[in-house]
Formats: sequence, C-alpha cells, structure tokens
Amino acid sequence: MIKRIGAYTLKFCEPPIITGYGATAGKKESEGPLGKSFKKVYYDSRAGQDTWEKAEAKFQQEAFIQAMDMSGNRAEDIDFIFAGDLLNQLISSSYSMRGFNIPYLGQYGACSTMAQGIIMASMTVAGGAANQAGAVTSSHFCTAERQYRYPLEYGGVRPQTAQWTVTASGSVVVSSTGKGVEVCHGVVGKIVDKGVTDLNNMGAAMAPAAMDTLKTFFDDTMTKPQDYDRIFTGDLGQVGTEILHQLLQGEGYFIDDVHRDCGLMIYDREKQDVHAGGSGCGCGASVLCSTILDDMAEKKLNNILFVATGALMSPTSNQQGESIPSVAHLVHLKNQDV
Amino acid sequence: MIKRIGAYTLKFCEPPIITGYGATAGKKESEGPLGKSFKKVYYDSRAGQDTWEKAEAKFQQEAFIQAMDMSGNRAEDIDFIFAGDLLNQLISSSYSMRGFNIPYLGQYGACSTMAQGIIMASMTVAGGAANQAGAVTSSHFCTAERQYRYPLEYGGVRPQTAQWTVTASGSVVVSSTGKGVEVCHGVVGKIVDKGVTDLNNMGAAMAPAAMDTLKTFFDDTMTKPQDYDRIFTGDLGQVGTEILHQLLQGEGYFIDDVHRDCGLMIYDREKQDVHAGGSGCGCGASVLCSTILDDMAEKKLNNILFVATGALMSPTSNQQGESIPSVAHLVHLKNQDV
Repeated sequence: MIKRIGAYTLKFCEPPIITGYGATAGKKESEGPLGKSFKKVYYDSRAGQDTWEKAEAKFQQEAFIQAMDMSGNRAEDIDFIFAGDLLNQLISSSYSMRGFNIPYLGQYGACSTMAQGIIMASMTVAGGAANQAGAVTSSHFCTAERQYRYPLEYGGVRPQTAQWTVTASGSVVVSSTGKGVEVCHGVVGKIVDKGVTDLNNMGAAMAPAAMDTLKTFFDDTMTKPQDYDRIFTGDLGQVGTEILHQLLQGEGYFIDDVHRDCGLMIYDREKQDVHAGGSGCGCGASVLCSTILDDMAEKKLNNILFVATGALMSPTSNQQGESIPSVAHLVHLKNQDV
Repeated sequence: MIKRIGAYTLKFCEPPIITGYGATAGKKESEGPLGKSFKKVYYDSRAGQDTWEKAEAKFQQEAFIQAMDMSGNRAEDIDFIFAGDLLNQLISSSYSMRGFNIPYLGQYGACSTMAQGIIMASMTVAGGAANQAGAVTSSHFCTAERQYRYPLEYGGVRPQTAQWTVTASGSVVVSSTGKGVEVCHGVVGKIVDKGVTDLNNMGAAMAPAAMDTLKTFFDDTMTKPQDYDRIFTGDLGQVGTEILHQLLQGEGYFIDDVHRDCGLMIYDREKQDVHAGGSGCGCGASVLCSTILDDMAEKKLNNILFVATGALMSPTSNQQGESIPSVAHLVHLKNQDV
C-alpha cells in the first residue's frame, strides 16, 4: 500500500526493492572517473548498428538485460516496463523494448526520466499491480546533439554553461520481494518555470525544480539534508549545482556537504572537454545504476536521495520564444537492513 | 487494491471513478456527426494564440478545466496529472500543465495516450497514492502535419489509406469516491510490430496491437465481445478496422456488431475529406470524453471497452527504414449501479 505524507510525498509502506540494476556507457564515459563502474562499455558510438539511434536502443537493451539478470528474472517475469528517452517520440525506448513482449508504458520526463520510471515501477509494485516492474532510460551524445542543436559535422561552438549529453543507459528491476535497496519514498515534481530561455544553460532552468522537490520532501518528512548519507541530483552540472545550493540556503537547508551531482561525477572536467558537466537521461541513470547502487550494495552508502531533473522544452517551443519548464522527481533509497 | 487476473489484465478491486470529463474540439470536428457533443469548440485553429502549438496547449487546458469543474475539484485537489501528446518532447502537455502546480508525469503512447493516462491515474487512485488523478491528451492537425509529414503550405497529396489528425483534446478526473463511471479493468499493451513501414497507413500498423490487447482481455476475463454494450477503438480508421475484424475472427472473436472506431465516428467521411478517418491522441480522447461518457451518464451505454492504439515510430526511425511498432491499451468502464 502507498500512503501520502505531508503535502506531496509518497510513502511505500512495504517498500519495493531494487533487485537488479545495470548500466551501459560509451567510450568518453568509460574514460571518466566512473569508467570502471559501468558493466558494459561500447567503444564504438554506433555499437555495431548502422545508425546512432539504433545504437542508443542497443544501449538500453543491454542495461535492461543486465538488470533482469541480476534480479534473476527473465522478460516474461516483468509485469511492466517504464521506458523513456530524449528522442522525438521516444524511439530509443520503443525500438529497444519491441522484442521483449512486456507491457510497455512510455514515459517522458526528459532527464528526470529515471526517477520517474522508478516511482512508476514502485507504484505498480506497491499497489499490487505488479510483482516486478522495470525502468530504463538512455541518452546518446550523437542522437541528442543533432536533434536538439546542430548537425555534428557543423562543429558548433558551445558556451561554458553548456553541458555534454552523456552516451549511456541505466535500468533497474523493482520487485515486491527479494534482496536489494528499498524504495522508501517518492516525490513526483510539479512543473517549475522561472523564465530561463537559454538552451545552453539547462542547469539554471532546472535548479529551481530541484529546489522545489527537495524542499517539499524535507518539509513533508520533517527531515534535513544531513539525515542522508548523500543527496544525488541527476544532472544540474556546475552552474545548476551552485544555483541549487543558493536557493536551498535561502530556505534554510544546507546541502553542500552531502550533495553530489551525477553530471559532475561522470566526467573529469579538467581533462575532458565537457564545459559545465554531463547531462541527458542516461547521465543520472547510468551513475545511479553503477557506482551509487554498487556503493549501497557494499554498504558504503545506506540511505540516499536521488533527484533527477528534466527540462521539458523542445526546439520548436524555444524557437517560439517560450521559456523552459522544468520538473524534478525524487526517490528515497535505503538499504534493507539499516 | 489492484489484482492481476489471467496473464495481463489488471482488476481494480474498488474501482476508481471517472467523476469528471471534458472535451475541446476544432472547427472541422464541430462540423462532424459529434459536433454538438464537445463542450467547447474553437473555430479559430490558433484558439487566439500566436502559434498552433500554443493553441494545442490551450485545448488541453480547457478540456482539463472542464473535467475538474464537473468533478467538483480545483487544481490543488488533483494529486497527479498524466499528460501526453504527439509533439516532440510533449510540449503541448508541459506548457498546458505548467500553470496548475500539480505533480506532473509525462506519458507517451502516441494515439494510445488517453487509455494509458486513465490506466495510470486509476493505478495511483486504486493503489492509495492519490485521491484524485487527472489524465489529459490532445492532437492538432496543423502541429502534427508539419511535424510528421509536410509543411502545411506545401499541400502534399494524401493517399486514401491516410487518416486525418483530429484537432481536439480530452481529459478525465479519476477519483477514489464519488459518482460516475467505474474503471473496472485495464490492460497495458505489449509492443506489436508486424513490419508495416507506410506512414500513410497507420491503421494497418496498429490493428495487430489492438487485436493482441483485446484477445488478452477476453482470454484473461473469460468474456466475449457480446458481453459489452460497445467496444470502442481509438482511431484505427477504415483500413485498420477491417484488419482488426479479420484478425479477431481468426481467433474466434466476432466484434463487428458491437465495435465502433472513434476515427470513423468523429467525421462524416462522405462529406468531409478525411480519407480513412480521424487519428491522433485527441481523436479517441475527445470522442470518449464527449459522446461516449455522455451516453454512459444517460444510461444509453452501461458497460464498454475503450481500446486506444498508438504507433510508436518517428520520422527519423521511418527514414532509417524501420517498421512501425504499435501498442494498444484497454480500459473496461462500467456504470456504478449496473
């Protein structure tokens, strides 16, 4: 059963369990600080496929198969798959999941998709609709760049506030029983739009959404940042991280010591030319489904928040002068025996 | 609580109730056989906005406000909104829902989005996560045509198998208590792809998915088509309808007498130049949220199936030679006192 506490927070009374997870990453990601954590690396950006889009679908398949294998399940044991990505009409997801014969629910939360998928999967398990549900998401530098910005061959110059779209996928299997990390709480974010219009400064657009969701969670649960071993954001990057810290300080919450941003963890910004850090659905997803959940399995971390942020605009809305609406979804994950 | 019966069917043990619904439509739709059923009609394709995309967002807002009003709720009473549309990055949904301050979950099922949204809203209500949840979706001929096919000014000639994208929106509010139509069962569809690649023949691509989901439901519940007053499909159009009848006959199910397709209901194909019928997320949604739910309120219909089908390709995947993966989601709706 699921209860609501405070204004917006969901409490999973018998917490669903992440019994399996997996992450696939590209060459650049394998050369970063977390390179050794990804279970599978494709050094070829096409992953043996004839287009980048098909490669992204293959990244998803691989991550999902890893998650199923770890949880000891086969595709026929999975009751629902919640899948999404950045591409128009979510083609990475529909083509990657086409062969599995699993009831399919396409999710779009831009870079917040991993947290959205975990919340949805947990809702189905905790509500009795599923015994096992999967969540998967991905991004790919080459597919995203040509869809959202410029043809790759054009070689457009990127400002320092821009983030680098991560080529990676992450996936989890959430189960009603088993061993693993518990999904204790979730917060579905509201759309926040503070009027930012710069497509090369997503961190600034998304930070207020992260603030809103974190403040909601702290208020609803009457906890503070220091009650958690770590608070991970999906991909605010350097600019968004600084804004988030300032915004939360204004509300009396200091997260600087416990906060890490997946967009800043995945690359070495001194050696890898990624400007403000990594971004994309695959950023938070692949970092969660590698080093973070590995550290929880080894009890280096026991009690964390994962907050993934998404910018919900499109090139069309931007060309029409619209600002960037953002959203942030949160999951509270805890080791079972802690 | 939610139980699973048979292989894939969800049974909502205390059925969530559709306590409010609303539909907004455009001029062409107002001139069709259902014209008088839509609560609000915009005769201007831009609905007073400066772009068609912003107009589509306004259609959604209007339909959702109608649904909230009818259910006696205000935005702060709605725990989640499940929203989606056909546009890249679901901008109709994110911009339409930006002002409501409701926890937001973007859904993508192409033209199956209305059924997907009702299932998701019902899951949150039946599982205890929400007291009230909303679902909304839309499509717009002008935004879809220029995104998926050709600039409108080009005036491309359409083959007879092509469907006409409906300019409309539909929305429901699903509640844990109250008066209205019960959501008794749901089936989340699996992705079905029989290799159709013709973007101007979506009906043929989607019919096998509708067959798969309907057969699943009949098998799981041990019922037959004639146990229902009507079976409505979202928008198979003329071509898809004929294929669905043939496919189900092959499985021993005859639905011809009880089946109606929203894509064939919304336009007068003899007088309105729409070729194989209507399509788009807004087609099934606006027909359900006007004449169908009106007929249920008046007890002309008491026990129906609503099956919405979606084609999950994009122009990019099509250009890369991919076939069209499809999905169909089903909800079983029943009057409370029957």
